[in-house]
Amino acid sequence: MNKIDFSSNEKNKIKGAKFSSLCANIKYKDRLDLILIFLEIGSIVTGVFTNSRTKSPSVIWSKRIVKSAFKNRNEPIAIIVNSGNANAFTGKEGTQAIEKIVSKISKNLKINKKRILMASTGVIGELLPYKKITEKIPELIQNLSENQLFDCAKAIMTTDTYPKLRFRKFKIDNNIISIAGIAKGSGMIAPNMATMLSFIITDIKISYEILQQLTSDLSNKTFNSITVDSDTSTSDMVLVSSTANVNMNPIEKFSDKRIKKFSKVLELIMKELALDIVKDGEGTKKLVEYQIMNALNDKSAKIIALSVANSPLVKTAIAGEDPNWGRIIMAIGKSGENIIQEKIKIYFGEYLITINGKVYKKYNEKKAKDYMKNSNLLVRVDLGIGKGKAKVWGCDFTKEYIEINADYRS
Amino acid sequence: MNKIDFSSNEKNKIKGAKFSSLCANIKYKDRLDLILIFLEIGSIVTGVFTNSRTKSPSVIWSKRIVKSAFKNRNEPIAIIVNSGNANAFTGKEGTQAIEKIVSKISKNLKINKKRILMASTGVIGELLPYKKITEKIPELIQNLSENQLFDCAKAIMTTDTYPKLRFRKFKIDNNIISIAGIAKGSGMIAPNMATMLSFIITDIKISYEILQQLTSDLSNKTFNSITVDSDTSTSDMVLVSSTANVNMNPIEKFSDKRIKKFSKVLELIMKELALDIVKDGEGTKKLVEYQIMNALNDKSAKIIALSVANSPLVKTAIAGEDPNWGRIIMAIGKSGENIIQEKIKIYFGEYLITINGKVYKKYNEKKAKDYMKNSNLLVRVDLGIGKGKAKVWGCDFTKEYIEINADYRS
Repeated sequence: MNKIDFSSNEKNKIKGAKFSSLCANIKYKDRLDLILIFLEIGSIVTGVFTNSRTKSPSVIWSKRIVKSAFKNRNEPIAIIVNSGNANAFTGKEGTQAIEKIVSKISKNLKINKKRILMASTGVIGELLPYKKITEKIPELIQNLSENQLFDCAKAIMTTDTYPKLRFRKFKIDNNIISIAGIAKGSGMIAPNMATMLSFIITDIKISYEILQQLTSDLSNKTFNSITVDSDTSTSDMVLVSSTANVNMNPIEKFSDKRIKKFSKVLELIMKELALDIVKDGEGTKKLVEYQIMNALNDKSAKIIALSVANSPLVKTAIAGEDPNWGRIIMAIGKSGENIIQEKIKIYFGEYLITINGKVYKKYNEKKAKDYMKNSNLLVRVDLGIGKGKAKVWGCDFTKEYIEINADYRS
Repeated sequence: MNKIDFSSNEKNKIKGAKFSSLCANIKYKDRLDLILIFLEIGSIVTGVFTNSRTKSPSVIWSKRIVKSAFKNRNEPIAIIVNSGNANAFTGKEGTQAIEKIVSKISKNLKINKKRILMASTGVIGELLPYKKITEKIPELIQNLSENQLFDCAKAIMTTDTYPKLRFRKFKIDNNIISIAGIAKGSGMIAPNMATMLSFIITDIKISYEILQQLTSDLSNKTFNSITVDSDTSTSDMVLVSSTANVNMNPIEKFSDKRIKKFSKVLELIMKELALDIVKDGEGTKKLVEYQIMNALNDKSAKIIALSVANSPLVKTAIAGEDPNWGRIIMAIGKSGENIIQEKIKIYFGEYLITINGKVYKKYNEKKAKDYMKNSNLLVRVDLGIGKGKAKVWGCDFTKEYIEINADYRS
């Protein structure tokens, strides 16, 4: 149950899955920017996609594949991902580029185009130089191996400062199940799939319906509960695949008790990748967990949590290590959600800050200031009016964020 | 029809209105922080207030006064405003502080408490040191004069770098009508009255109902169409008062043709003050006008305009003078509003950037880059699907914003 051991890829294989990465010079030279994931016959793929109204052609394409691919388990699945160009807002040419790439893979791997997914990340609005990709496909296929996941994590990076890769093994009925996941951030990270991609592969035997349900539910609790800058990208997706390669009785009913254990480990992987993304948020120096409790309902709790976590004034206060709880009050208020001022309790870590509609009498500003110096912070808000709760992870707003985003073209 | 001439306050009087300001040492020493506006018998006051769910006691108090004060025109109106402390989230003590202050003014001016409004701006959550205010009330009343508006504009500043004051004269039926307005920003400026206060006084004779309608409608087009950081304050209000001191037939019917001219000048004053606030936004170096046209409807256009204007990634691109139109596409997409990608035309100034779902063939990046160097920018988005339109003013997102807000306690 540890992090992946990079020194020995041997241990971290997923039965039935192969990986490949290389440099196709899409935007930069001498930088990995193209990956291929190959999943053997019998595999399934599920997904969650950006809610953006300006979805990229890759998102539109892959979403359609996820919806239909489960009908046919008699062919392998291929996932191709490029960084350096989002292929977003590229008109008909954007869709044609995908078709060229997918056709080439289909021909060379001898699988149906409907079994091939694509994801892209990088600059919006520039035509994807698809020939750079198609000409590399034979090499990409040739390189496929069980040990290339770490390089794949590197190849999907954009402004990320480190690759994000997680791996877990656990037992179900004496069968060893593995889950591996890679992800990239790191700006435009906001609810509903900000600029992030994540590819998670397991070898468990599970039905499409159950895995898709878990992908959706757990994404809401993890990838859709992190925020770096409140911007939502055109290009994001989480694909959770299974090679069904473990010799076990398949999980085919929602009542199956084994789901609980699998779900727990999958959520852990997703949460770790999600937090890796926030921690690597552009210019981020602090990770903040916002817990909203006793809200009117869960939906209201999440709206309030995001209003606080996304507030530039809250985020700059956190950057300044200032226990400026008044800005949290402001951000709760601007959410528009039902609250009763007199019932709001705010805590920084273990310190109670507000009660009875004002600052707590024993509030100690010095202690709160010391607490704010931590790089991992917990902000709890007890609204005292219901049973709704939400957990969201955010970060601070630093000068480095401005520097990165004023200079980097995304 | 010019800006106020500070050298000669004499010219810029509003008949029936007196002003006073002084230093009450509320937060800082030797800085004006308390003002009183006195409006003679016959005056009316209208207002628009923050939508925050954590409204300050001052907002709650003044909102109630505006709703009832119009019933009684037989007493003067007083408006007291302090900076340095927002008296927000201060519990029962916050409301009691207002009562103490209002009672003192009521006693000394011999007017009903229901004719006294209060506004406060500054730090949230600290108890208002009301005794500092009450003990200054006799001096404040003593100082009342027709010429103190400029000092009032200074006294309501917080992180503002300059006072915001506008004045216009115009004729209706050979009567000279005056409108004067002051305002303060400058962070937490987002739709629905971010941390801003504005007090506008005219001497026109007009009914409460018509003036309140104009205040609401024109605030939506001006103060509620600017955004600095998307945060909404607990404390904001716009009060538009009339002393009814001009010798004219009163405007009492919505069909009165004179309303149009008055409305035009009032909107101009409100727009100028609103733009003054954006230009003085914390760390702001550029003023951007976003025009959304041919949206599904006006409401949709405004949601999209604000999604773009508030996007940290758009704002950092503007700070970096980068014509990064991909981020505008992203921000349109994240709004969740109905659009058709192929129909979106984006213009920077006069330059067409996107058409047919992709970048315009004749798009010239060099020209666009040169354009972005201007300090006043126009971004137009033609959605091509309806007749809805909206205009919003925003700014860039600079390192200075972070500096100001990581260090300043608001």
